[in-house]
Amino acid sequence: MKIYRYKHRNKTYCGVLEEDTLHEIEGSVFRRIKTKKEGIPISEVILLPPVIPSKIVAVGANYKKHAVEMGRSLPEEPLIFLMPPSAVVGPNDIIIFPKMAKRIDYEGELALIIRKEAHLLSDSVNVDDYILGYCCFNDVTARDLQSKDGQFTRAKSFDTFAAVGPCITTDVDPSRLRLKTFLNGKLKQSSNTNNLIFPIPFLVRFISRIMTLVPGDIITTGTPSGVGPMFPGDRVDVQIEGIGTLSNTVMKIKQ
Amino acid sequence: MKIYRYKHRNKTYCGVLEEDTLHEIEGSVFRRIKTKKEGIPISEVILLPPVIPSKIVAVGANYKKHAVEMGRSLPEEPLIFLMPPSAVVGPNDIIIFPKMAKRIDYEGELALIIRKEAHLLSDSVNVDDYILGYCCFNDVTARDLQSKDGQFTRAKSFDTFAAVGPCITTDVDPSRLRLKTFLNGKLKQSSNTNNLIFPIPFLVRFISRIMTLVPGDIITTGTPSGVGPMFPGDRVDVQIEGIGTLSNTVMKIKQ
Repeated sequence: MKIYRYKHRNKTYCGVLEEDTLHEIEGSVFRRIKTKKEGIPISEVILLPPVIPSKIVAVGANYKKHAVEMGRSLPEEPLIFLMPPSAVVGPNDIIIFPKMAKRIDYEGELALIIRKEAHLLSDSVNVDDYILGYCCFNDVTARDLQSKDGQFTRAKSFDTFAAVGPCITTDVDPSRLRLKTFLNGKLKQSSNTNNLIFPIPFLVRFISRIMTLVPGDIITTGTPSGVGPMFPGDRVDVQIEGIGTLSNTVMKIKQ
Repeated sequence: MKIYRYKHRNKTYCGVLEEDTLHEIEGSVFRRIKTKKEGIPISEVILLPPVIPSKIVAVGANYKKHAVEMGRSLPEEPLIFLMPPSAVVGPNDIIIFPKMAKRIDYEGELALIIRKEAHLLSDSVNVDDYILGYCCFNDVTARDLQSKDGQFTRAKSFDTFAAVGPCITTDVDPSRLRLKTFLNGKLKQSSNTNNLIFPIPFLVRFISRIMTLVPGDIITTGTPSGVGPMFPGDRVDVQIEGIGTLSNTVMKIKQ
């Protein structure tokens, strides 16, 4: 099932895509999903970020080759950082090149969306019960500010730096998905989620032992090697097998 | 004016304290504040965190003596990091000593609450218009995990690690407030916000140029020297002149 969030005639909906038709979800997307029979063509709506999270938890250095390209040692435990909800944009939205930064990079990632509250999950718990589904994520990073600060926060928290979409896919096996990032159509990152150092069940349990995860929260699982800079006018596509493609364009605006 | 958020007979309210009486605020706390004539004694309510923020932006190494005690160089620009909304607790709440940590420290701080959306504020803007008021904040930190990770996020994001309260005070001059932290009644931190390396107007403008701040967001301005460990059973008080005292107790729970 592919769940989209979208605007139609100035109202916001969640819906399930069947062929080219979106069927509106009745009630909460986090409960048992029921859809209306009638639908509207996806071409007639404006796509939105599939969720508005209370928090975004990101995992650094979670692909070996990326850790090596960044000159980082492999972590013994997941290295986490946060992005604010204000950074979220959706499919086809603009990524703003901020005045404060000299270089901004794409980082294509697989993200997951929390379905129900997760707090101190034990090793025996089935993590799938806590996950609504999976998205593409572009963890945009001001590389110069990341180096300058040491802390990742500023570099990754600018408005529009957490691109997520195009939809939430509920029925993929996240442990073996091909992930590709294209810059202006040129392949830049190509890996598979079977290369994750800490796989998804481990990440969800680990993070739930630090902070309570609530419905709609995003965990983004880290980027493979091949990161590089984007410039105003560039188009970036994060493509994940079974999920789809998240496309955004970089722009400089007057600030 | 001192604004409290509280529970009374299982309903949540915001109110203004006059002597010992809380007068309920009609409408949003972020608009022009109007209160009801009748009130209830503060002794009859349960105090809550004064806001539930969409994000908490914290500033590291913002007092010279603390930067020195932590062996950090003085930052050229504010060093920011985030805490998740799930970490928030209020006055008299328990701070949980997490199983994952070996040492947790108090960090008493002055925090401010955003009143209206702040985005790309220019140098000429009056920052006071964007601030609802000021609170005490305890930026609890798992010191061993902070050293291990390098990134501050895990160390500062545990549930209950962002203690805020007891109220939002609207009419203090935040540029010169005495700040004290007591552990079991013993003075541990004693400074004045006139020692902040980056003062509040600078911080609000700087952060607004990274991420859009929305009503209820918290900025906590950094801790002075004198940080140290807390143990289960300890009581910690953060006291700021003109605002009041935020008291919490540390507990270990079965995890």
